Amino acid sequence: MIVGVLGGGQLGRMLALAGYPLGLRFRLLDPSAESPAGHLAELHVGAYDDPDALVRFADGLDVATYEFENVPGEATRILESRLPVFPPSVGLTTAQDRLAEKRLFERLAIPLPAYAAIDSQDDLQNGVRRIGLPAILKTRRLGYDGKGQIVLSAPEDVTTAFEDLGGVPCVLEQRIALRRELSVLAARGRDGATACYPLVQNTHREGILRVSVAPAADVGALQAEAEVYARRLLDALEYVGLLALELFVDDRDGSLLANEIAPRVHNSGHWTIEGAETSQFENHLRAILGLPLGSTAPRGYSAMVNLIGTVPATEDILAIPGAHLHLYGKSPRPGRKLGHVTVTADSARARDELLKKVLSIVGG
Amino acid sequence: MIVGVLGGGQLGRMLALAGYPLGLRFRLLDPSAESPAGHLAELHVGAYDDPDALVRFADGLDVATYEFENVPGEATRILESRLPVFPPSVGLTTAQDRLAEKRLFERLAIPLPAYAAIDSQDDLQNGVRRIGLPAILKTRRLGYDGKGQIVLSAPEDVTTAFEDLGGVPCVLEQRIALRRELSVLAARGRDGATACYPLVQNTHREGILRVSVAPAADVGALQAEAEVYARRLLDALEYVGLLALELFVDDRDGSLLANEIAPRVHNSGHWTIEGAETSQFENHLRAILGLPLGSTAPRGYSAMVNLIGTVPATEDILAIPGAHLHLYGKSPRPGRKLGHVTVTADSARARDELLKKVLSIVGG
Repeated sequence: MIVGVLGGGQLGRMLALAGYPLGLRFRLLDPSAESPAGHLAELHVGAYDDPDALVRFADGLDVATYEFENVPGEATRILESRLPVFPPSVGLTTAQDRLAEKRLFERLAIPLPAYAAIDSQDDLQNGVRRIGLPAILKTRRLGYDGKGQIVLSAPEDVTTAFEDLGGVPCVLEQRIALRRELSVLAARGRDGATACYPLVQNTHREGILRVSVAPAADVGALQAEAEVYARRLLDALEYVGLLALELFVDDRDGSLLANEIAPRVHNSGHWTIEGAETSQFENHLRAILGLPLGSTAPRGYSAMVNLIGTVPATEDILAIPGAHLHLYGKSPRPGRKLGHVTVTADSARARDELLKKVLSIVGG
Repeated sequence: MIVGVLGGGQLGRMLALAGYPLGLRFRLLDPSAESPAGHLAELHVGAYDDPDALVRFADGLDVATYEFENVPGEATRILESRLPVFPPSVGLTTAQDRLAEKRLFERLAIPLPAYAAIDSQDDLQNGVRRIGLPAILKTRRLGYDGKGQIVLSAPEDVTTAFEDLGGVPCVLEQRIALRRELSVLAARGRDGATACYPLVQNTHREGILRVSVAPAADVGALQAEAEVYARRLLDALEYVGLLALELFVDDRDGSLLANEIAPRVHNSGHWTIEGAETSQFENHLRAILGLPLGSTAPRGYSAMVNLIGTVPATEDILAIPGAHLHLYGKSPRPGRKLGHVTVTADSARARDELLKKVLSIVGG
């Protein structure tokens, strides 16, 4: 079986690493010949919207998937006419458009912060009047890692925000005080079976995920609630593969609010490589291949730290017992995710100690 | 850093899979273009004793290692003149010659079954007189997986045994009644630091490893004893890398006897991928690269079942929670190791239940 992956970044790379033990082979398509996954799988270099490249890429594949959500519609159309492609394109089109995403949450009775569709400066003024400040204006499309958004704190921020984002279609979101940020990873097989991982607690810095802790502590009934929401999404989208649902915990009442979905394996799930019975990468592959989903039970207590912009001295990380290094083979650049470190331990306390050590090396 | 591996079989494949997360790249040399590791690393196709192939292989490598012990002396000589090669060649030459191996055990005061060097039919008759029957006659070189050996049970077996093995230099070994077979995996870094994994209990069938259980139950003082022996070997050989020491437990008195060493990652260590903090593959790479060794602590209770000759229905294995499938991408052939399955659990009892399930699918 040959699995095609659109995108040859670290997610494609980790998909391949998880899939080789299942006896799979991989072909990746990426515009860059320097893609991290190219070291360990067949790499096709080509644009995602180049029909010829897509046809060559598809030739001989058994199934195709993607490692990022901004896949051009052209790419999915060409691939879907030739072979099974999972997750289904409705997952992509929903995740590509913040407005569609929020409307889906609403339709499925998944609570979310107040929002408004913004197509003009007038819309923005009306929206702010209804939702209040602080709020966040986000482009409907192509935002990631904190890019394509502006925080509106004071009335004067409102004047230029829409223009500053290029006058493109946006959504305005209520900015709620967060007690914490969580995510839930869930998979759905071709047969409709689903499996959810324990909730993960995430810490961001400058819009980029910095630390994930799993299982998130003291979640109580939130675990069951998050799973209900994740399963509603999976079923509504007739989803096949792994999906991440990012959640806020509202500081006022501790309730869950949906932030966004990612129709793919997700950075907040990297801990599952060592920290769960089956990694998110393996479960994504199992799902799209029609194989039984693997156990999502945690193995001890885990934390993941992203290595962003620079890689610390490798030997310092490796000297920490219980620390697992994952480098992506990328050249350093500010803000770039170059790797991650996962620590696992038998208790939350021991995990926290290890996390502290890693952060002291990585730079807290 | 580019690591060269002589041999592109499953061990080379799993070395590469363990090394990619460390940011390493791999190049493998194998006579067969169909090598399992060729799917996921740069593969050079060439004979191990072809100087031109070896020189091309060595070009640009940072370090070289091997995945099997019958490496031609020519290969190590050519590689060692160009770059660091680990484990050191004395590990190879010792493991390639059963007599040298036994003499090393003796020199290091590591107990072993009685033996005799056999270079003629006369030697064999004298040896049998001294050691008694049952005994096993083994070729000094090129034996593996039960090949190149004959069990001598009755006096009439002695008559043709030497001839049947081709009249090549042999060793005669006392055949002791075994309570069980164990192995210990140990690593030594470039700085001389050592680390030992828990003892593994192994079951063979027709000379081929079938099941490994780790940690081996009820080993008591044998763990410390095995570690002493392993460290004596590592230090005496000024070893760098992972070494496996196969041990017998004598049924008469429960004492440990050395069987043989393998100067490489070993089938009885595959459980470490999921069952230990750091896999044998990663620790071998850490050792040869001069990086700190990783923790060898077990993660729960593990068992590994080899898939020999045929692969059962993949979905049946994957449906067992806690079962981890590892296929090597090889075409089926009787007696060929095609993959393995590892189960992990929080208790020995739960592990044994999972092992039973796997064996019922694989064919007990």
